[in-house]
Amino acid sequence: MIEPPMSPSTTPENRDANDPLAPFRARFDLPDGVIYLDGNSLGPLARGVADRVAATLTEQWGKSLIRGWNDHAWMDLPATVGDKIARLVGAPAGSVIAGDSTSINVFKTLTAALRLRPGRTTILSDTGNFPTDLYVAQELSALLGGGYEIVTVAPEDVANRIDSDVAVVMLTEVDYRTGRRHDMAALTRIAHAAGALTLWDLAHSAGAFPVRLEAAGADFAVGCGYKYLNGGPGAPAFLYVAPEHQNTVRPAIAGWMGHDAPFAFDPDYRPAPGIHRMQVGTPPILAMAALDAALDVFAEVDMDMVREKSAALCDLFIEEVERRCPQLELVTPRDADQRGSQVSFRAAEGYAMMQALIAHGVIGDFRAPDILRFGFTPLYLRYADVVAAAATLERVVNDRLWDDDRFKRRRKVT
Amino acid sequence: MIEPPMSPSTTPENRDANDPLAPFRARFDLPDGVIYLDGNSLGPLARGVADRVAATLTEQWGKSLIRGWNDHAWMDLPATVGDKIARLVGAPAGSVIAGDSTSINVFKTLTAALRLRPGRTTILSDTGNFPTDLYVAQELSALLGGGYEIVTVAPEDVANRIDSDVAVVMLTEVDYRTGRRHDMAALTRIAHAAGALTLWDLAHSAGAFPVRLEAAGADFAVGCGYKYLNGGPGAPAFLYVAPEHQNTVRPAIAGWMGHDAPFAFDPDYRPAPGIHRMQVGTPPILAMAALDAALDVFAEVDMDMVREKSAALCDLFIEEVERRCPQLELVTPRDADQRGSQVSFRAAEGYAMMQALIAHGVIGDFRAPDILRFGFTPLYLRYADVVAAAATLERVVNDRLWDDDRFKRRRKVT
Repeated sequence: MIEPPMSPSTTPENRDANDPLAPFRARFDLPDGVIYLDGNSLGPLARGVADRVAATLTEQWGKSLIRGWNDHAWMDLPATVGDKIARLVGAPAGSVIAGDSTSINVFKTLTAALRLRPGRTTILSDTGNFPTDLYVAQELSALLGGGYEIVTVAPEDVANRIDSDVAVVMLTEVDYRTGRRHDMAALTRIAHAAGALTLWDLAHSAGAFPVRLEAAGADFAVGCGYKYLNGGPGAPAFLYVAPEHQNTVRPAIAGWMGHDAPFAFDPDYRPAPGIHRMQVGTPPILAMAALDAALDVFAEVDMDMVREKSAALCDLFIEEVERRCPQLELVTPRDADQRGSQVSFRAAEGYAMMQALIAHGVIGDFRAPDILRFGFTPLYLRYADVVAAAATLERVVNDRLWDDDRFKRRRKVT
Repeated sequence: MIEPPMSPSTTPENRDANDPLAPFRARFDLPDGVIYLDGNSLGPLARGVADRVAATLTEQWGKSLIRGWNDHAWMDLPATVGDKIARLVGAPAGSVIAGDSTSINVFKTLTAALRLRPGRTTILSDTGNFPTDLYVAQELSALLGGGYEIVTVAPEDVANRIDSDVAVVMLTEVDYRTGRRHDMAALTRIAHAAGALTLWDLAHSAGAFPVRLEAAGADFAVGCGYKYLNGGPGAPAFLYVAPEHQNTVRPAIAGWMGHDAPFAFDPDYRPAPGIHRMQVGTPPILAMAALDAALDVFAEVDMDMVREKSAALCDLFIEEVERRCPQLELVTPRDADQRGSQVSFRAAEGYAMMQALIAHGVIGDFRAPDILRFGFTPLYLRYADVVAAAATLERVVNDRLWDDDRFKRRRKVT
């Protein structure tokens, strides 16, 4: 189609030239010929990560062997990495610990939260929550005798459903499919007014925009290290416990790293003070090193600036795609305040469309049953990339490039 | 002291020259000037691991990005790594899955086991079990309403204490302090006769000698990736579920990777068939790659040969140390059948002695309150190393090299 006229100041190239975050692109090793709109599934490799892991492996582990725990402060990594994440999610130092997987951290924090609200029997969530969070709640309830009811309502109905029987409001801040964002502060206020606690899954929030856990009064949070934080496939996750709960919570999974004196080898469990009691086993040092180095990129980043550019990239993509492919149905809120850092469109042939799009160099992802999902990561994406991606999507959709058997066969992992 | 005369055929050098496992030493990157008797705490770096991790990082993650899950079969790693471990622990293919930490795997398997024995209220363990296993049991019981009694008896009294109220006999096969080894087959037989299940912690067994889970009829097992398996600091752990339980167990931590169809994003949990239901979150790919490459060393190893050399190395060390340092008290069984692959001595000044020994190039470790612990790993240790280590220990002990303030100050991690 014919490009509409643009004033020189608004060309994507001009916006890139004036983008204060543009220099950060050089901090990533991005493959040639690819526009990567899937940093919300798996962030790319930041420069410095490979060297850091190699040094951890050959210089630290290889040469120090067991002495590495002392020589290289490996044992401190869960807390030092946690503190780097804390800055991004609006949490005080000492309130975030890195480790385990997001699913396990949901289990740990949800269990801790439920035990702070004995007698209450509702776990409230929404139908847009990521399934693993719901699975964990379902099976935790079963483990505890089935006395809990997991209530899932539409996202917009959560506030009205909070009552005095709700123990925990457990929500993913940004919907993994639609990108719709909850108002963390408002929902936490309502939950607290009803005597309930909140547990926020920040999988699609941490590193995507400034999260304000402490300001919102959130009680617990968990999040993912491999999406916007770029920690690598299956990177350690993290969890947050509000300072007022840290010395009150009782961990369900009581491992030696959460003991007050792990190397005293006391046969009786005694929880460590503060956030450390939420640790369980030996921290995964190679994976922690990768995440730690990836987080160094964020040290110089102003997250408000990230948010501003994220909103602009998403707006531009919505505008370009709607103009080029009117048959795609936008499922993400148009209002930037109502969404995270992704844009999703619905299309019956979404699976094949996404495979075709990937084959043509634009990587987004597909989420069943019919969602084309695009993540926008301001540290390495350019405005020009957004327009180019929309143009490729236009060709895939309008020229029916997706209508090809090789794109329709579903693979095991999409 | 004067060395006793040895016939040429029994010198350590001769034994090394005739050792069929000697070529495996070249498969490890060992630092110069160190005799490493702590592979039971943290195995060393095997050749090929650094390259494999670097390739996973830069070639796979860096270039494939999210496509790595398909392009490089990342999702299969927990099972492929699990199968490599299965061979070492006498388990059928498809019955071991790698992931999470040992502590978390104790939680998962213990919970699964308890739910297979409703109505029984005793978890039986021994006083020599590794504390994290006991902590997990204690706090799991509290989580479940406190209805379980965790009974710990002396290791030799376990068999007699098994009765019809025991739900699970939970033991670490090899005592982390003394090196004493339980008779897995005999205890499992007695447990089963009483209607109880068994859960074996193989932290000091897997990779140390041939474990025979299936032959022993063990129900559950867990183990560590970073000790004898050489997977690196905080490597993924593993768990085993006997085939007859795999489709019956109900996981307490129900994550999306244990769902029957993780990428269908069904809001309701439905456990995957077989061992996969014990998976929880996204597998840690960099750490899995390291462990996978480290396990390749074992592909060509005859574990019976490992066992034979391990017994010989331990015997030699006991003999050398007792002759040179009669004031050290052996706490490991003399009978090789009764122990794992470590030798421990008791000494009141053990902490300072171990620090001094490490400063003089022999790395073992100290376990509170008074245990000097030495691990023997036949793939990279030579008979000559054992004699040299004993000679250094002799100097440290008999010349009181340990009697120095710098060795007496306890560091955070020992």
